[in-house]
Amino acid sequence: MDKVTKEGSPAFVPPAERIATFDNDGTLWCEQPLPVQLYFTLDRVKALAPQHPEWKTKEPFASLLKGDLKTALAGGDRALLEIVMATHTGMTTVEFEQIVKDWIATAKHPKTGKLYTEMVYQPMLELLAYLRANGFKNYIVSGGGIEFMRPWTEKVYGIPPEQVVGSSIKTKFEMRDGKPVLVRLPQLNFNDDKGGKPVGINQHIGRRPIAAFGNSAGDEQMLEYTQGGSGARFMLLVLHDDAAREYAYGPPKIAERQAGGVHAGGLRQSAERGLDRGQHEGRLEAGLPVRAKPGHGH
Amino acid sequence: MDKVTKEGSPAFVPPAERIATFDNDGTLWCEQPLPVQLYFTLDRVKALAPQHPEWKTKEPFASLLKGDLKTALAGGDRALLEIVMATHTGMTTVEFEQIVKDWIATAKHPKTGKLYTEMVYQPMLELLAYLRANGFKNYIVSGGGIEFMRPWTEKVYGIPPEQVVGSSIKTKFEMRDGKPVLVRLPQLNFNDDKGGKPVGINQHIGRRPIAAFGNSAGDEQMLEYTQGGSGARFMLLVLHDDAAREYAYGPPKIAERQAGGVHAGGLRQSAERGLDRGQHEGRLEAGLPVRAKPGHGH
Repeated sequence: MDKVTKEGSPAFVPPAERIATFDNDGTLWCEQPLPVQLYFTLDRVKALAPQHPEWKTKEPFASLLKGDLKTALAGGDRALLEIVMATHTGMTTVEFEQIVKDWIATAKHPKTGKLYTEMVYQPMLELLAYLRANGFKNYIVSGGGIEFMRPWTEKVYGIPPEQVVGSSIKTKFEMRDGKPVLVRLPQLNFNDDKGGKPVGINQHIGRRPIAAFGNSAGDEQMLEYTQGGSGARFMLLVLHDDAAREYAYGPPKIAERQAGGVHAGGLRQSAERGLDRGQHEGRLEAGLPVRAKPGHGH
Repeated sequence: MDKVTKEGSPAFVPPAERIATFDNDGTLWCEQPLPVQLYFTLDRVKALAPQHPEWKTKEPFASLLKGDLKTALAGGDRALLEIVMATHTGMTTVEFEQIVKDWIATAKHPKTGKLYTEMVYQPMLELLAYLRANGFKNYIVSGGGIEFMRPWTEKVYGIPPEQVVGSSIKTKFEMRDGKPVLVRLPQLNFNDDKGGKPVGINQHIGRRPIAAFGNSAGDEQMLEYTQGGSGARFMLLVLHDDAAREYAYGPPKIAERQAGGVHAGGLRQSAERGLDRGQHEGRLEAGLPVRAKPGHGH
């Protein structure tokens, strides 16, 4: 930290350029046994089912409503996209924000019974605060929905809406009942994952981060892009190895994804360069433990 | 201003929500006789011509290279898009940034001989500073290219890259010579004009502005969207009526566009609601004249 913040240091970075980017699922909050937005989506299917009698016999909704998640998601990305579009679109952005706020205020994690916003990692909250105290601007750069995160990230992480980058659907400006609104359309706008993360960073921030934090193959390109700049750089992958207090799934799951061919090159290259094991098992200069453990939002 | 900044005021707005959005061409800097980015584009055609011998006989490039702008642009938006794609893509984002920096440092306005960054409106610079001093965050929301503006907006307007919203092309993350880069692709990503402006605002900022400033039919929806929020709102259209010190083209040009059917409804509605003549000929509470006159960047 001293290298980039002490005036006169050869690697000094002006405050305006101290950009840190964070993945969300599995980096700032728990993504096990399933990503939180998937629970939100399933609850939306249940809430909307009375308006969609056809879902009783139409897959993937029929299986979902019977609680058979495995069959419902057997259709892969296409089935998931169909469920997301059916539950996340048609309303205005303001209406969707309220739906998310209402849900996140009460929905509980299936294993711990805690609010999802309490399933955040205490060391990462401390890291966010530490960076902020040193003049950094923290951004979320997540594969999750941008409008699913914005309603609560400021309260939970101290990250305001304009510092949230995520996946999005298209919206359309129109007058509804004489009021100007943005309507959420059932079309993907941007997939903020893997190679999309550097693209989203450039689009929203227009600066290359000097620090980046992730936990999975989806964060690989963001870390590589961060490392590719000049001067001092810091990249970290969170390791999940504490089955007692959270879930243990870090490297094995990444290895599994690699074996599946999703990211054959990326993580292997990173491991060779020391991005991987070396840093995610290490400690930040500030002395924060980087092993994940669930904490409490503030 | 007191209404939204004085604690205890019924219309008080916390600093984090004090968002002001500004069109750029014709609102912050001169867009006559042609928008600045078009001059950049024409200069790029000349610079790249030696690498494209086929342009000598291929329209719209052939006419451009002969200096016959009228014939070159007779093909309308399609011809313009072809020229933009041929000159703005293929390189990395870092390379493009340098091209813009080099050009903007030396290119001169055809009538005044001043740098384009000196063809900015002094009252608007004062307005930006006044809003900033009152806790506002100023954003540019322009139909111009986001990466064409970011290299110089901080120096000229005090608006950093992450507060610039604009039109964009798609980019792709890849490794070039072992380095992680974003390559600019010849595909439109987002058209930040008219109904696109509220969409871009929501995408980048995630908050509805409480003040918005424009000068043309392309800003109409941004002003309507701003007006549609609750609490105190401020919308302004800059009037260009000073042919001696700048150009006189404000309302007639808007009327002409309306007649052409581009925005039959919007501006007429605004005029009825007092958005148009009432405010752009008025004065801000701070006492700043809002008639455009060219000034100097700081």
